[in-house]
Amino acid sequence: MFDKKLGILVWNEGVHEAQNQPTTMAEMYPDGIHGALANSLKSFFPASEVTTATLAEEEHGLSEERLATTDVLLWWGHKAHEDVSDEVVRRVHRHVLSGMGLVVLHSGHRAKIFTKLLGTSCSLNWRNDGERELVWTVKPSHPVAAGVESPIIIPQQEMYGELFDIPEPDDLIFISSFEGGEVFRSGVTFSRGKGRIFYFSPGDQEYPVYHQPQVQRVLANGVDWVAQPEAPRSLPEVKKSPRDWFTTDQSAK
Amino acid sequence: MFDKKLGILVWNEGVHEAQNQPTTMAEMYPDGIHGALANSLKSFFPASEVTTATLAEEEHGLSEERLATTDVLLWWGHKAHEDVSDEVVRRVHRHVLSGMGLVVLHSGHRAKIFTKLLGTSCSLNWRNDGERELVWTVKPSHPVAAGVESPIIIPQQEMYGELFDIPEPDDLIFISSFEGGEVFRSGVTFSRGKGRIFYFSPGDQEYPVYHQPQVQRVLANGVDWVAQPEAPRSLPEVKKSPRDWFTTDQSAK
Amino acid sequence: MFDKKLGILVWNEGVHEAQNQPTTMAEMYPDGIHGALANSLKSFFPASEVTTATLAEEEHGLSEERLATTDVLLWWGHKAHEDVSDEVVRRVHRHVLSGMGLVVLHSGHRAKIFTKLLGTSCSLNWRNDGERELVWTVKPSHPVAAGVESPIIIPQQEMYGELFDIPEPDDLIFISSFEGGEVFRSGVTFSRGKGRIFYFSPGDQEYPVYHQPQVQRVLANGVDWVAQPEAPRSLPEVKKSPRDWFTTDQSAK
Amino acid sequence: MFDKKLGILVWNEGVHEAQNQPTTMAEMYPDGIHGALANSLKSFFPASEVTTATLAEEEHGLSEERLATTDVLLWWGHKAHEDVSDEVVRRVHRHVLSGMGLVVLHSGHRAKIFTKLLGTSCSLNWRNDGERELVWTVKPSHPVAAGVESPIIIPQQEMYGELFDIPEPDDLIFISSFEGGEVFRSGVTFSRGKGRIFYFSPGDQEYPVYHQPQVQRVLANGVDWVAQPEAPRSLPEVKKSPRDWFTTDQSAK
Repeated sequence: MFDKKLGILVWNEGVHEAQNQPTTMAEMYPDGIHGALANSLKSFFPASEVTTATLAEEEHGLSEERLATTDVLLWWGHKAHEDVSDEVVRRVHRHVLSGMGLVVLHSGHRAKIFTKLLGTSCSLNWRNDGERELVWTVKPSHPVAAGVESPIIIPQQEMYGELFDIPEPDDLIFISSFEGGEVFRSGVTFSRGKGRIFYFSPGDQEYPVYHQPQVQRVLANGVDWVAQPEAPRSLPEVKKSPRDWFTTDQSAK
Repeated sequence: MFDKKLGILVWNEGVHEAQNQPTTMAEMYPDGIHGALANSLKSFFPASEVTTATLAEEEHGLSEERLATTDVLLWWGHKAHEDVSDEVVRRVHRHVLSGMGLVVLHSGHRAKIFTKLLGTSCSLNWRNDGERELVWTVKPSHPVAAGVESPIIIPQQEMYGELFDIPEPDDLIFISSFEGGEVFRSGVTFSRGKGRIFYFSPGDQEYPVYHQPQVQRVLANGVDWVAQPEAPRSLPEVKKSPRDWFTTDQSAK
Repeated sequence: MFDKKLGILVWNEGVHEAQNQPTTMAEMYPDGIHGALANSLKSFFPASEVTTATLAEEEHGLSEERLATTDVLLWWGHKAHEDVSDEVVRRVHRHVLSGMGLVVLHSGHRAKIFTKLLGTSCSLNWRNDGERELVWTVKPSHPVAAGVESPIIIPQQEMYGELFDIPEPDDLIFISSFEGGEVFRSGVTFSRGKGRIFYFSPGDQEYPVYHQPQVQRVLANGVDWVAQPEAPRSLPEVKKSPRDWFTTDQSAK
Repeated sequence: MFDKKLGILVWNEGVHEAQNQPTTMAEMYPDGIHGALANSLKSFFPASEVTTATLAEEEHGLSEERLATTDVLLWWGHKAHEDVSDEVVRRVHRHVLSGMGLVVLHSGHRAKIFTKLLGTSCSLNWRNDGERELVWTVKPSHPVAAGVESPIIIPQQEMYGELFDIPEPDDLIFISSFEGGEVFRSGVTFSRGKGRIFYFSPGDQEYPVYHQPQVQRVLANGVDWVAQPEAPRSLPEVKKSPRDWFTTDQSAK
């Protein structure tokens, strides 16, 4: 249980849900993937406000006002990355650089916001054969690994394999292996501007991964870790600074 | 204010205090450097137990029992590094690898425990001319930088300059400059085993650095960040693991 | 002297040169900044082909054909970042991810290609008062620091100060200080895709920085380090990989 | 083929060879593991001097004179870590901090020199069932990955699994998976002082791993990368530096 009071916004493109595709979707995630994630986070963060938004909403539910009160944005997308407006992506990007936390999930690795923040293609190898995934902790001292067993066993999962074209992460917390022998850096952090980012790959529209308690714990840890509710939301900017600018408004502190 | 309940132990060799050397010591730090640090931390962590220990105590006040209840150990040493017993150093080392937090201060860069954890000489350039030090934040998203102004202005300080022979830190949070033009990586983190380490260089026996509110804030942030009170204290060990060991006591979690 | 045979392309927007602004430009850099850089690199890489290109050329001199034979691209820009076509930026970005080396210089920190690769604003504090800059080596084992004295003394320079809004670099090699007390991560590396990037901040249109032998050595080291002439130029891409794909065309190697 | 002229010293405890244990040893590695490694390196570095040394030699073959002419030391040990004298370990440690390259192999993860340089236990999970190991490249831009296929397939190997208790490496180049599902950070670099270190886990006394051309290529890359033959061999030391020390013997360079 986390006692922070956060504004947590779970964003999902919502296309698999709208199409009930795969046909197990409605049964597996009756409230959508975003609903399942939000329900889980509510139980971890009882003092926080957890809401959801989808692609179909006006401005994808990611207006300036909405983001201004969001401490942590979670992002799930898969089929409709290209339908996210560039203006909204720029807005989210600005908020992350200004201090908003971002948790990117699974196929969100190809979301515009993720590739824009990382600067790389974020491409990978994949195969959907329902293989077992094992998620191994390699940085046990990191807050995101707290209370997490190693390995987490995911009975069936889409395979994501290296080469995962991401920059060197600030922290490599989890590495996954798959039955076929591939490996994947499945839990990684980045800082961009004043914001923190956590990417976690387990989770898919075909498997009930987000119902696993250990996966939920990782995501709660991730939300807690990227959140900076007390930090002023301000963008790093080019500033011309006269000599000794820092002594004019400061005494020894 | 931090609401965690921690066992915080401020260790100081206590030699400058015992010798009242420099002669300003007794006036500047009437309770010793450890006392000043403890008093500050008590105000930040009202729910925590903050105690002190010194070299002169039996086992330097760092018995197995004491460390077992210590979530965060702060270390200040300067003149008497060689007088710290190797057995105690091995004990502290084991506790850090097992998850205890460690905050190493100023001239503690040459403490046996620090060089043992880092593997390098931790040597540096120095000069004591009472120069102004400016402490610049370069990773504003890190918890240790929260609420800290950049730069912190330290009116007079001993100069510590590069090359600081440390391994590449996990996080580089602060870089200092001095009037003479030298620079120093003055706030850095490391993880070793399951433990977290924060090193912060400002602070000396000749200057009232530890009375500056911003320095106290950094140290409180550092203590908060290295603490893992809920993590089991266990040493990473070589284990022979039969195939499928992880499925015998785990179902999908 | 470096014996690699490289295709080295020095790109400069060339606007300061075209306008002879500042008025010392023509005398200080009679062949332009790009010409000065190219001349220096020719002396370090006698077996290499060193050429130049500017904004005014067709496709800014950065056609697909040109980039295909370029092992290392150096980038100097300042006044005309916005005039660089997005198409060319995407092309250069693709080549970097595919393995081309990139050296970004001074005010190129705000070039489209740099912010696109890094994902951040790359903003900083600045002031042009002709202050002395000291460039300190903090990672002496890095190839880019080979043969470089610490500090490099730059008698007069524009001040670039933190916060420099860049992602955590792969390697932090140099930190600068300025007379006014500011510090700057002045020599940093990044990897993006299969490519290597080196950013070095000393160098300006108003000061003869690129004529200093030690600065020239750093840039030659940087070019040598980012170059991968034997690596196939190929973009990391999303691939669907059938199970055991790697055993079909490989025996134990 | 690498054209550097290096002093390369392959060190092996040599106990498995002396005992012909396992009984396949003499056939698999007729010149010992050190001999096999040296033969391979000779073919990659025809201009270099490649020699070997073992535990049984005086000072373990690692005298001050020998190390002084060694650019790169490779270290293979397994059964006799405790028999390596502390004095020799301190000597090697000093040479690494002073700039000598070090390549640590397989079970050398528990060698005194490795734990001393890294500061952690370097413990791991293991099992010897002859499982297939796949070695995946995750940092293709690193020199050690040049010309290496991903994955390298090792038909039979001892399993080394996480948690591998090492500090965060400077570069994570290879991650391995094993048939049983474990993963391991199998190719990592560290810098310590002025020296570079590469650790590579594939290789064992029971399997002919060091005869695989791709493994040999990795090791040759590693040797090439840690070598700094032109760097002066000098230990970072504490220095008292008077103000402006750097201007007395330097003009603008």
